[in-house]
Amino acid sequence: MLHFESDYNNGAHEAVLRHLIETNDERTHSYGDDNFSEHARALIREATGTPDADIYFLAGGTQTNATILDCLLEPFEGVLCCDTAHINVHESGAVEATGHKVLTIPNVQGKLMSNDLRRWLQAYFADDTAEHMVRPGAVYITFPTELGTLYSLDELKALRTVCDDYGLKFYVDGARLCYGLAASPNVTLPLLASLADAFYIGGTKCGVLCGEAVVFPRGNAPSHMLSRIKRRGALLAKSRVVGVQFEALFTDGLYFQIGRQAVHLAQRLREIFVEEKGYRPFIDSPTNQQFFIIPNTDLEALHRIAGFENWCPVDATHTAVRFVTSWATVAEEVEALA
Amino acid sequence: MLHFESDYNNGAHEAVLRHLIETNDERTHSYGDDNFSEHARALIREATGTPDADIYFLAGGTQTNATILDCLLEPFEGVLCCDTAHINVHESGAVEATGHKVLTIPNVQGKLMSNDLRRWLQAYFADDTAEHMVRPGAVYITFPTELGTLYSLDELKALRTVCDDYGLKFYVDGARLCYGLAASPNVTLPLLASLADAFYIGGTKCGVLCGEAVVFPRGNAPSHMLSRIKRRGALLAKSRVVGVQFEALFTDGLYFQIGRQAVHLAQRLREIFVEEKGYRPFIDSPTNQQFFIIPNTDLEALHRIAGFENWCPVDATHTAVRFVTSWATVAEEVEALA
Amino acid sequence: MLHFESDYNNGAHEAVLRHLIETNDERTHSYGDDNFSEHARALIREATGTPDADIYFLAGGTQTNATILDCLLEPFEGVLCCDTAHINVHESGAVEATGHKVLTIPNVQGKLMSNDLRRWLQAYFADDTAEHMVRPGAVYITFPTELGTLYSLDELKALRTVCDDYGLKFYVDGARLCYGLAASPNVTLPLLASLADAFYIGGTKCGVLCGEAVVFPRGNAPSHMLSRIKRRGALLAKSRVVGVQFEALFTDGLYFQIGRQAVHLAQRLREIFVEEKGYRPFIDSPTNQQFFIIPNTDLEALHRIAGFENWCPVDATHTAVRFVTSWATVAEEVEALA
Amino acid sequence: MLHFESDYNNGAHEAVLRHLIETNDERTHSYGDDNFSEHARALIREATGTPDADIYFLAGGTQTNATILDCLLEPFEGVLCCDTAHINVHESGAVEATGHKVLTIPNVQGKLMSNDLRRWLQAYFADDTAEHMVRPGAVYITFPTELGTLYSLDELKALRTVCDDYGLKFYVDGARLCYGLAASPNVTLPLLASLADAFYIGGTKCGVLCGEAVVFPRGNAPSHMLSRIKRRGALLAKSRVVGVQFEALFTDGLYFQIGRQAVHLAQRLREIFVEEKGYRPFIDSPTNQQFFIIPNTDLEALHRIAGFENWCPVDATHTAVRFVTSWATVAEEVEALA
Repeated sequence: MLHFESDYNNGAHEAVLRHLIETNDERTHSYGDDNFSEHARALIREATGTPDADIYFLAGGTQTNATILDCLLEPFEGVLCCDTAHINVHESGAVEATGHKVLTIPNVQGKLMSNDLRRWLQAYFADDTAEHMVRPGAVYITFPTELGTLYSLDELKALRTVCDDYGLKFYVDGARLCYGLAASPNVTLPLLASLADAFYIGGTKCGVLCGEAVVFPRGNAPSHMLSRIKRRGALLAKSRVVGVQFEALFTDGLYFQIGRQAVHLAQRLREIFVEEKGYRPFIDSPTNQQFFIIPNTDLEALHRIAGFENWCPVDATHTAVRFVTSWATVAEEVEALA
Repeated sequence: MLHFESDYNNGAHEAVLRHLIETNDERTHSYGDDNFSEHARALIREATGTPDADIYFLAGGTQTNATILDCLLEPFEGVLCCDTAHINVHESGAVEATGHKVLTIPNVQGKLMSNDLRRWLQAYFADDTAEHMVRPGAVYITFPTELGTLYSLDELKALRTVCDDYGLKFYVDGARLCYGLAASPNVTLPLLASLADAFYIGGTKCGVLCGEAVVFPRGNAPSHMLSRIKRRGALLAKSRVVGVQFEALFTDGLYFQIGRQAVHLAQRLREIFVEEKGYRPFIDSPTNQQFFIIPNTDLEALHRIAGFENWCPVDATHTAVRFVTSWATVAEEVEALA
Repeated sequence: MLHFESDYNNGAHEAVLRHLIETNDERTHSYGDDNFSEHARALIREATGTPDADIYFLAGGTQTNATILDCLLEPFEGVLCCDTAHINVHESGAVEATGHKVLTIPNVQGKLMSNDLRRWLQAYFADDTAEHMVRPGAVYITFPTELGTLYSLDELKALRTVCDDYGLKFYVDGARLCYGLAASPNVTLPLLASLADAFYIGGTKCGVLCGEAVVFPRGNAPSHMLSRIKRRGALLAKSRVVGVQFEALFTDGLYFQIGRQAVHLAQRLREIFVEEKGYRPFIDSPTNQQFFIIPNTDLEALHRIAGFENWCPVDATHTAVRFVTSWATVAEEVEALA
Repeated sequence: MLHFESDYNNGAHEAVLRHLIETNDERTHSYGDDNFSEHARALIREATGTPDADIYFLAGGTQTNATILDCLLEPFEGVLCCDTAHINVHESGAVEATGHKVLTIPNVQGKLMSNDLRRWLQAYFADDTAEHMVRPGAVYITFPTELGTLYSLDELKALRTVCDDYGLKFYVDGARLCYGLAASPNVTLPLLASLADAFYIGGTKCGVLCGEAVVFPRGNAPSHMLSRIKRRGALLAKSRVVGVQFEALFTDGLYFQIGRQAVHLAQRLREIFVEEKGYRPFIDSPTNQQFFIIPNTDLEALHRIAGFENWCPVDATHTAVRFVTSWATVAEEVEALA
């Protein structure tokens, strides 16, 4: 059986696991106040070009999004995103469970476009009844998006400009950040850090057992983060477990290498499906998630040899499917599919 | 340096780590729907004598308490506990963040006594203004307590009876359950399971990297648990990480052995402090947390050789301190302290 | 100055005020447990043909919507409505502040159409990832809508059928219910009560100082409503104030008469604007809110003689405006406008 | 039947009702932006000596407490009060429903004493685990208290000093403020306003149909109060109804006169019970709530001639009862009781 169901159907990258093993016997402080976590923070500060960054280690994307957006927003504010955003669709209402409305704008290829955002904001602020509506306090995007697409550097800068113009925080969900960075011609971690007010470097989908690193790039975390995080149930007593794993991810460029390899294999997958087998892509994705349109008559056979997700019906006789590569995918698997 | 700060200042028990390593390369389903988790559930059902139990794997005690109490309570209900309860003191208001009041009753040796509970409930239900007060919906205890003390089997049964008499759910926080079971003359996992409506088997403080196993012993979990858990940010995509570790904990009685060893060393610690060195115990604890009263003049020297926690001032010249053993504590450390 | 800003720019209908005066000196029980409220409930049960109805008096539409939807929904459920729904747009996120997501479907003339609803639900329940999405628990509509339009009896029945097919609660926001009933050819209060699981009879916009009557038509209110309502800050100590006013509204058909008169004047308003003055209607509304498209060059002059609301820009040179009649509007005002 | 059940068992003071009648026909803006409310604010600013005060009109004490405390607190902060405080006991968990913990300190005669408060804060800030506990953000008191007792001016000043020393907001619940001011030798409205960060002038229990005036004395309301209030369901569309009534209350000193008269009759009540009939007071209350200890054998007969509340059992044969006077109580009623 070949496995392309997701990028979290596996354990940890070997180098990550090795570092867990070699640090296992040390005794440390807890709740993030340990040397491994401190070193991991230093490595992340270096990789993101943010010497003053505040960095926190949480476990899980939904937890991170709900907790950090709650930190960025005033209680009466909502968060703007496109309608396909993960927080709007696939987080079981975790953001609303913290009392904040998710305000949506139609997506373009899974992305929130800055001109649509600006138009929305113009209408909001021109409305005499704005105070009766939920005030926007932050903008949420994913890089890459749920559809595997990427914002160009210019698109990111344009979103930042709109945020500045309207006093909004800019938050980037980086659940699959390593794959986005690998596929982007010019968006780098330091550039992303310079544009966002907060973002997280996803670990769970990028090679660790569990863990995400939240970065407030300019030391701009609000006060009492430990209380804020614990109140949302997101503080790990043995937080070092995440710190240790991020130490490994940011040693010798492992994080970036993981991204490059998975993207490389994903592009090969695409070649196989589209060029060799003649299937149509559902969307043009440069990252580790590939979406193809498959005749329903082929679905069963395909499911027998490989794990993948039926994404959505396309028409009466075709289905869009998703194949995902990860750090754990090997070239042999991809070729076996061919 | 000797380490008695806590039972979460370490990595994972060697057998747990080994199992993580040997399962690392397998690809599985996600969100708890994998074979490791399924097997771990089977092992836990066997160890708890609950063939019909619903079992969920979360990561972190505060997260678990807030999420599961929210499942047990109606929105307008509160949870009863003693004033020293972890949810009341040391969870940054996570329960209140889900909208529920924590209703407190004075503790006796860190415990909630059934007669105090009954008196509270009698007064509540006799009060004409009860509907203007927060209705009690569940009772929360820890086994062992925050002060290391234990409920006797009779005390647990008496609490269960009061819960039955007043229609309350009975929830047991088992963050340190293995140490409690090891120290108790007659409270067993099946007995606990037969008395509680829900409880969790703590992993983080009992030998795993992260993870707790929530048990609804009689298949009595409410519907849509995946949504409920994810909405609170408590669903791990790679939930198998916890499943794998609990598989190890419940293989060959490891969980119980971890408890026994740490309790044994804790009793030796107590012997050293109380009998050999003549310090007074702050409270009489049979479990892995030991509290001693130390003259302030001795504190600095003691902190130089061992990590431990200053618990609270006792009087102008004495401080209560906490020494904690864990699965990671070795006899040599304890003797070195002597 | 003529006044068409809203239907809450006034005091109370004279008969309502008179009843407040004549009951003012009586001493009663509090929190809804008084004879006036009890009598008002009896009158409403009669008018709605619901002898077993549970009825509660709150004050304010947003408060009522947020409180009652929270009663109808499980904590992890959301409420479905059309995108123009009041709860989605103009309640400052009050529903989300109780932790529930508002799930939206595009409107047709301000209405939620049953076929769109059914399609949404089919897609939701066919989705393998449904548990990661917010589960729909209730359907919300307003009668009449925010745009003054009305559901036909068949449309209401079709919505009810979809709710039955998918196990959803059906909730009707009746902030302007009297105007909707007056304009509908065949929707009556008993028919509405037979279709909804809960609805409220709006008072604030229909002739009282403050107050709305929530009806659970088949005695189907959840338990502990006093606690649920008070917990949301919606319980009036002197709740009789609302009870007394609803006694007046439901004596001698006042509620229905208020609706008929305002609708009659609104239709005259429409005649003046559309037939006599040649403006285009923005939407075809049979109720007390009328929307016209006005050249921007006429706006200022019109604002000098009458209070009304600029609703939204239509194009570069035209604006949609809203004129509202109420029980307080008199024929002379409407003719003066002519 | 004589009526001493509560101070909200009635309608509105005659002058208040008269003003509602005489303003009934005017058309105004909504949501607090009307001339009556504006004038009421001016009168309150004058009476409180706070020319820069921000003032909002809400309806109901529980709603006001929960909404305004939520404005004063950071999301992760709790509110300190004594254990008998209304928000802790009799508001159905409304404060917790907004996500904030109520932190309690034992009361002395229904009051929070500044030295107890200081001791609590010293312990909190000296605790190494403070970040894991709920951070105190505000102090809540009622003036007068739930037991009818009063803080002296010195006691209020001492609480203010502690708040300043620890950076806490000071909030005063004035549900029965008029009775407290009437009974206090030296606490005046301007003095109270100079000490509090926010307080509310109770209307519901002091002569109006419904309504409370929230005062931020130094223009220190947080931004976007309309949104904040509406989000909690506390914004009245026809908010003028409260404004009009407060206009009446603060014209010609009516608010103070209401307080004086009720307190005068309450003291006469006390004379009758204690000096003439020989009952013992349950607590020494100088305000409009009087508590007496009654032999259980006398209870039934007393309940036949007067409405009052059984407060709590005192011993096996005695019950504490509460008699309340209000603006609506007349001397004849009190003497009839004699």
